Parts: sequence; C-alpha cells; structure tokens
Amino acid sequence: MSKLRVAVIGAKGRIGSEAVRAVEAAPDMDLVAALGRGDELETLVESGAQAVVELTTPASVMDNLDFCVRHGIHAVVGTTGWTEERLGRLEAWLKSSERTGVLIAPNFSIGAVLTMHFAQQAARYFESAEVVELHHPNKVDAPSGTAIRTAQLIASARDRAGLPAQPDATATALDGARGADVDGVPVHAVRMRGLLAHQEVLFGGEGETLTIRHDSLHHSSFMPGILLGLRRVVDTPGLTFGLENFLGLGD
Amino acid sequence: MSKLRVAVIGAKGRIGSEAVRAVEAAPDMDLVAALGRGDELETLVESGAQAVVELTTPASVMDNLDFCVRHGIHAVVGTTGWTEERLGRLEAWLKSSERTGVLIAPNFSIGAVLTMHFAQQAARYFESAEVVELHHPNKVDAPSGTAIRTAQLIASARDRAGLPAQPDATATALDGARGADVDGVPVHAVRMRGLLAHQEVLFGGEGETLTIRHDSLHHSSFMPGILLGLRRVVDTPGLTFGLENFLGLGD
Amino acid sequence: MSKLRVAVIGAKGRIGSEAVRAVEAAPDMDLVAALGRGDELETLVESGAQAVVELTTPASVMDNLDFCVRHGIHAVVGTTGWTEERLGRLEAWLKSSERTGVLIAPNFSIGAVLTMHFAQQAARYFESAEVVELHHPNKVDAPSGTAIRTAQLIASARDRAGLPAQPDATATALDGARGADVDGVPVHAVRMRGLLAHQEVLFGGEGETLTIRHDSLHHSSFMPGILLGLRRVVDTPGLTFGLENFLGLGD
Amino acid sequence: MSKLRVAVIGAKGRIGSEAVRAVEAAPDMDLVAALGRGDELETLVESGAQAVVELTTPASVMDNLDFCVRHGIHAVVGTTGWTEERLGRLEAWLKSSERTGVLIAPNFSIGAVLTMHFAQQAARYFESAEVVELHHPNKVDAPSGTAIRTAQLIASARDRAGLPAQPDATATALDGARGADVDGVPVHAVRMRGLLAHQEVLFGGEGETLTIRHDSLHHSSFMPGILLGLRRVVDTPGLTFGLENFLGLGD
Repeated sequence: MSKLRVAVIGAKGRIGSEAVRAVEAAPDMDLVAALGRGDELETLVESGAQAVVELTTPASVMDNLDFCVRHGIHAVVGTTGWTEERLGRLEAWLKSSERTGVLIAPNFSIGAVLTMHFAQQAARYFESAEVVELHHPNKVDAPSGTAIRTAQLIASARDRAGLPAQPDATATALDGARGADVDGVPVHAVRMRGLLAHQEVLFGGEGETLTIRHDSLHHSSFMPGILLGLRRVVDTPGLTFGLENFLGLGD
Repeated sequence: MSKLRVAVIGAKGRIGSEAVRAVEAAPDMDLVAALGRGDELETLVESGAQAVVELTTPASVMDNLDFCVRHGIHAVVGTTGWTEERLGRLEAWLKSSERTGVLIAPNFSIGAVLTMHFAQQAARYFESAEVVELHHPNKVDAPSGTAIRTAQLIASARDRAGLPAQPDATATALDGARGADVDGVPVHAVRMRGLLAHQEVLFGGEGETLTIRHDSLHHSSFMPGILLGLRRVVDTPGLTFGLENFLGLGD
Repeated sequence: MSKLRVAVIGAKGRIGSEAVRAVEAAPDMDLVAALGRGDELETLVESGAQAVVELTTPASVMDNLDFCVRHGIHAVVGTTGWTEERLGRLEAWLKSSERTGVLIAPNFSIGAVLTMHFAQQAARYFESAEVVELHHPNKVDAPSGTAIRTAQLIASARDRAGLPAQPDATATALDGARGADVDGVPVHAVRMRGLLAHQEVLFGGEGETLTIRHDSLHHSSFMPGILLGLRRVVDTPGLTFGLENFLGLGD
Repeated sequence: MSKLRVAVIGAKGRIGSEAVRAVEAAPDMDLVAALGRGDELETLVESGAQAVVELTTPASVMDNLDFCVRHGIHAVVGTTGWTEERLGRLEAWLKSSERTGVLIAPNFSIGAVLTMHFAQQAARYFESAEVVELHHPNKVDAPSGTAIRTAQLIASARDRAGLPAQPDATATALDGARGADVDGVPVHAVRMRGLLAHQEVLFGGEGETLTIRHDSLHHSSFMPGILLGLRRVVDTPGLTFGLENFLGLGD
C-alpha cells in the first residue's frame, strides 16, 4: 500500500516539531515537507503532499487553507481562533473543491475528546455534576476552554433530559468557594507547579458517584489524534469540526 | 396520569427493603404488595400489580417469574444465577405472553453500567488498560464479577480493533504484583475496611491517561436503576438482559 | 484489667447513638449510663462513670462539664461553639480538680486529623498548595470548617518557611473559578449527591505532585477517635484541644 | 554570602545533565565542574569544589567517594547498589575526615520521601493498608523498590503498634488478583503507557479511608531534593542515609 504523503505547516513550533516526529515515525505516512515561517506554500505542491497538518496562528491559517483547498490538499488543523465568519468562508472554498476534506479540532487529545463525550452521555443520569480542571501555573485563563466546553455540554444534556437545577443548600460561602457557574454547572480551576493539563468531571446520584478523569502528561498526547485525523480526513470531503466525529462513538 | 402499580418480591432482604422504600417514594408508582418468604404469589394478582421487582434467590426466582409471565405481570429482576438453560426457559414462557416484559440486570447501579459502557468505547483508543476494584473486606471473591466483566469487555473491544498485546517489560516480579490476567487485561483487587464497592478503569496512551471511576457508597445506589427499569420494562415486551439496554446510550 | 466505666451524654442524637454502640462494643470499656435530654446528671455519679463522652449542644455543654469536673469525671467533648472565654472558664475549673482531663476535639475522625497534620508537614516543601473539599449537597457552609482550618495551617507553615506567594499567571478568569482565597491558599468546594465528607489537599513542585485525600463514608468514622480519646484522657490531666495531641505524631 | 561551589560527577547522564542545569539555576550555588566518564577527579580539587553530586554507577561510586572524602569534599549520592559492606567501608573513610558529610539517598523526590514518612505515621491507626504503584510500561521490575520499601515500613509500624493481620474474607480469587504480599501488606503494580512514576498508599478504617498519592511527572522532580541535600550535607558530618533525615519531620 502506498504511504500517505504528509506536510507540516508550522513545523518549527513546539507542537509542530512533535508533529514532524510523529509523521516521520508513522509506518503508513511519508513526511514530504516541513514548512516554517517564510517558507513558500508552493513547496506543498512540489513535494506532492496529499494532506497537511496546519499548526500556525490565526493570522496565517486562512491563507494556508485557501492554498490547500485550491490545490486539493486535505488538511488537519490545530490552529485556533475560528469564528462563524471564518468557518463560512472555508466552507465556501470547499464547495469548489468537492473531494477535499478539512478537519478542524479544538483538541486533538483523544482522552480529552472521550472525556467530553462520556460526560455528555452520563449527564442526564445524575442529580449533580461539577468539573475540576488542574493546570500548570503559567496558564493565563481560568477555567480552561475545555472545562468550559465540558460544562456547557453537561448543562445542555441536563436541559434536554428535563433535569432540575442541581441540589445545593449552601447558605454562607466564602467568595469563590463554589467555583465558577457555567450554565449551572460549577467549574473549579486548580493551578499548580508540576502539573500539565488535567480534568476531572464528577457526577453524583443517590448513593454513588462517577468520575471521569483525563490527565495529559506530555504534549505528545496530541499526536495520536493528529495521525488519526490525517488517516480519516482524506476520505471525508468537506468540513469536519471536532475530532469526536472521527472516533465512531455512536450516539 | 395513573400510577404504575408495583409489587416487591423478596421485600424483607436488605436490597428488598430499600426497593420497598424507593417505590413508595416514587411519585409515579404505587406500592401494592411487598412479599416475603412464604407469602402467596396470588397476592400479586389480587393487588393488581402491573410490575414486580424480583429480589429473591436462585432457588425461588424461576417459580416467581413463571407465575408473573403467566399473569402478564412485567418483572425487573435482580436475583443472580442465570444460565443459558434458565434464560432459554424464560424466553419460551415469554413467547406465550407476548406483551409481557422482563428485565434481568446483573447490576442496577447506573454508574457501574455507564462505567462498563464507557470502558468499552474507550478501549480501542489506548495501548494500555487495567482495572483496579476496591471493596469492603468481607467480600469473598476477588476480583469482583463487575471487574471481570469490565475487563472482558475491554479485551474484546481491543480484539475487534486489532490492538496488539499491552506493552509490559516486566522481567522480575513478586508473585501477584501484576494482578490477575483476564483475557490480557490486568485486574487488581483491593480489600479495605471503610470501603463499600468501587472500581477504577485506567487507560493509557502516548502522553495521556483516561480514568473512569465508579464509587458506590451506599446500597441505595441500586434504586434509581430499579425505578428506571420498572418505567421502561412495561413498554419493552420480551427479555432484556442488562440495564444498559434501557439507557439509550447509542453505539 | 478492670474496664473503663463510660457514660454518654447526648446519647439519643445521631452521633450519640453511634457512640453508645461503639462504647458497648469496645472490649476494654463498660457503658454505665446513656443520658438524653432531661436526664439527671446525678446518674453519672450513681453509675460510677469514670469518663463521659459529651455530644450535646453549645447551650448544655458548659453545665455538663462543670458537673463532670467537679466530680472528677474525665470528658471527651464533641460539642462545638468554643470561644476563648469558654475555654478560659473550663481551664479555671480544671485547676481545682487537678487530676481530671478534658479533651475537646473539633474533629474526631483520625483520617481528617492526620490529613491536616500531614498537610502542615508537607507545606514547606512545595511551591503550590490547594484544597478541594467535597460534601453532600445539604451542607450549608462552603468551604467546610475543616478545609478552612487546613488551608490556614498550610499558609502558616509556608509563612514560617519563608515561601513566596504561590505561582499563578491567571490573567482572565470567570468569577469564582480559582476558588476561595484562604490566607493565599485556594480552597474549592464541591457539593454533590452521593457524597458524605471528603477532602483532598494537593501540593505541587518541580515535576511532581503530592495528594493527601480523606474520605469519610459514614458517621461511624468518628468512633475510633472517640474511643482513643477516652483511653488517653484518663491519663492526661487538664485541657487538651485537638485529637492530634493524642496521636503521638511528633513534630 | 558566598555561594556553594558544586561539581557534578556523571554529568552526561539523563539525571546528571538535569543536575547540572539545576545547580546552575540555583541562586546560592556555583557549578564549578561537570565530570563525565574518563574525566580526572583531580578537576574537583582544582575547581575548588566544596560538594559534589555523584550520579554514576555502582562500578565507579566507591572510587569517587574515596577521593572526595580524602579531600574533604562533601557528597550527595544518587548512585545505587549499596550493601552493608560498602556502607561500612565508607563510614571507615569518613572517620578519618571528620568534618566531611555524605548523603546517600535511594530517592531524591521529596514527594516520594514524604509519602513514605506519612505512610509510616498513619499505619498504626488503620485496620487496612495497601499500596498501588503505577509506572511506564518499560519498567522491568514489579513492584517498584519504593513500593516494596513503603509496604515494609507500613508492616513494621503495624507490628510495633500490635495490630492484627488485615481483615480479608477472600475465599475464591483469580491468581494475582490480591496483589503481591509484602510482609502482609498487599502491593499492586500497574504498567501503563503515558505514565512515569506514581504511587498510592491506601488506608482504611471504620467509615473512612485515607489516601496518600505521589505523582512524579518528570525526572526534574529529583532536583529540589538534590539541592536540599547539598545545602544540608555541608553542615552534617558523617554518613546520612535517606533524604528524610534532612526534612526535619520530627517523629
């Protein structure tokens, strides 16, 4: 079987250089180009790339994807900053290149994506649900985007199931003790030296609790998701948003 | 809306008496009979029971279900000891009473059932998987039936996904250190004063781990599952094995 | 060896009735009296009680202890509401009865007391420290008194060791996300059906974390501490505040 | 204040090169030499090193320490393979150089050392105690040396306190389910991709559990312990075995 010819755009960054190594190590892929800032996009065509991993910045990603879609090169995109307007433009381009696939994923960690999926499935069965996320102390936002998204998914699953507000008799509290309120789901953020990125979703019902915990101990945790994205995007024309769509999770 | 008329068979046992209380407290149910050892099954008919909760012993359960199915009374069954032969006999009875439903569940804890379901979904995405179960020290078997079943589900999901054996370089080990081998999935059993019933399913891949933990802190944890079973079994003719079939989990 | 003759005051309450059972079951103790509201304190003298367990209310405790100290009966006290003024009065009484011992403990759970002690010992070695406490949803205060006390102990140990403020680059946060600030130590409170009383103390340093977790799954967890208190208070004249003083923990 | 002049022997290895970086970054130390295989020990004298970090192999460590002790250079030693005979020889050398200090530590992670210390303190108060250690799948021994040592410390603390054997009603078990038996304390070893080195010590008593968990997420976790060892060894003549002796833990 011939190997998938893959290029990495943004190959000099921390995640980008991990992606270069991961593609090189994958037995079913060939790394044909690794572009850093200032390198010409034409290299993608010359190298015969069938798919790219796009790991740059919001300022560059649209031009890069415009080029890829025009040349029928599939893309797996980790760059952030997506708005409705940007997604609309990208979808318009994809209509003129109907065999090309683009995967945009806010999170390439399979563990993080499964955690959100399971949280959503479990939410309707428990009276109580809270999220505790734990990160290194250099993180500037709290809670993490993943924790906020998880809480929103739980809240809307509770809503669809007709669950009432969570039980909570708190009458006197220190400011902040009960966490941030995200659509009725408390979210707590711990910042601690020694940690990388961790999230715990807790559910409680009569006599029992269910906890789903994801620990990301190294940035290499994104690589299996990126490789899985590459393998699937070439057979999935159009725009796919979220790695969960490629995990065959049913429901 | 008229309430569901429910009887409990085995109402004097520890779980049975919890079930009596739970049915009494359910706003959409009426407890119409609570049978202990020696009580007449005819009471079920006289009380107008539409559904029963069967919580007796392997020695009594077949006679009880024979009676219920003949009288068109739906049943939610927590009694254990099911064999292929017994299930076959029950299915034959149900064929002659085609509107009657029976739910048999090895575990009525929704948290335990979700844990197994999620474990099965996650298994194909991780190189490593192990199970740690923790119970009170009066438990006579190790590992728990739930832990063995969970490991088997993981093993067969790995198998279907074509995963190789788990990585493990252990060359010298104390006897028992690496746990019990259940179809290639290590299972560890902790026995400890202060605990009731707990299970942790651990998955590990490149740079990340995913942990699903279920804590059962009180026997009342079975009640939401029994009530959910009652509400669904009346509209589900025939034999259903496993509460997961009533949870609408997709996949 | 003769057994210790013990009376329980407040024997009808939830903790009190557990204490009655625990004393009855202890091989080295005899339960000689169990007083509820309205019962005469004289019974303590008539029954020959050597020590009492006092589990009543702030309104009754001072009269009860006044009586005990005057009659040379040792006391283990779980009732709350202690102020400097009350402690001063009690100490004055004890001066006139120099062989009598009184133990007052805000928490009789040995696990909770050890958690606080270990937290205090560990605090000086880690850059980061946070507390997560988790309780049933009927609790009216947040964070728990134990969590606040734990955070204060950590803060003052950090202070004595000359540690700087904890690292935390948070620039944008949802209100409450980073918990309550107790002397510079973030404290997070989870409220969840299915839980009783749980506390996790997290420490983080370069490349590692240390977590001390206490789970109280049943009110019986106070009993070993009460029994230990009884055995030691009879040989410890004067006032002792805190069970940790009887645990022989050094440092 | 003048800075401590430190040399690293074994500076090219994985831990050694971390140690070089850590000494360089410490505001109160100067790195004066970094010796790899084949480098002359005389360099230590020429560079004016007051203390060394010794991170080599059992084959080299005795010669290196002989040299250091003869020249009055203090040493912090991470190399393994210590026997009674070797320790005896080292102590004899130290008698002829009475102001020189040597610290040998099987584990420089402060979190791991505290975990063992706390486990030892807690052991006498709980009926049940088990150890679960979790490591990367390339580890060749199971359980880890740290887990075995922890279990032994727990066992001897239980013994000193006169505790009976742990409660365990297990009658039928799969082979290995209950872990390895280390002096009556069950020890379970998990091997999993994504992990580095983790240990959980569980204690259980009436109605409660206490868990002490140490997570080592990066080899840099040894550095704070090595630096602390350097700062203390210069004022601690003679042989010290175990970092715990420098932590001022009392008891």
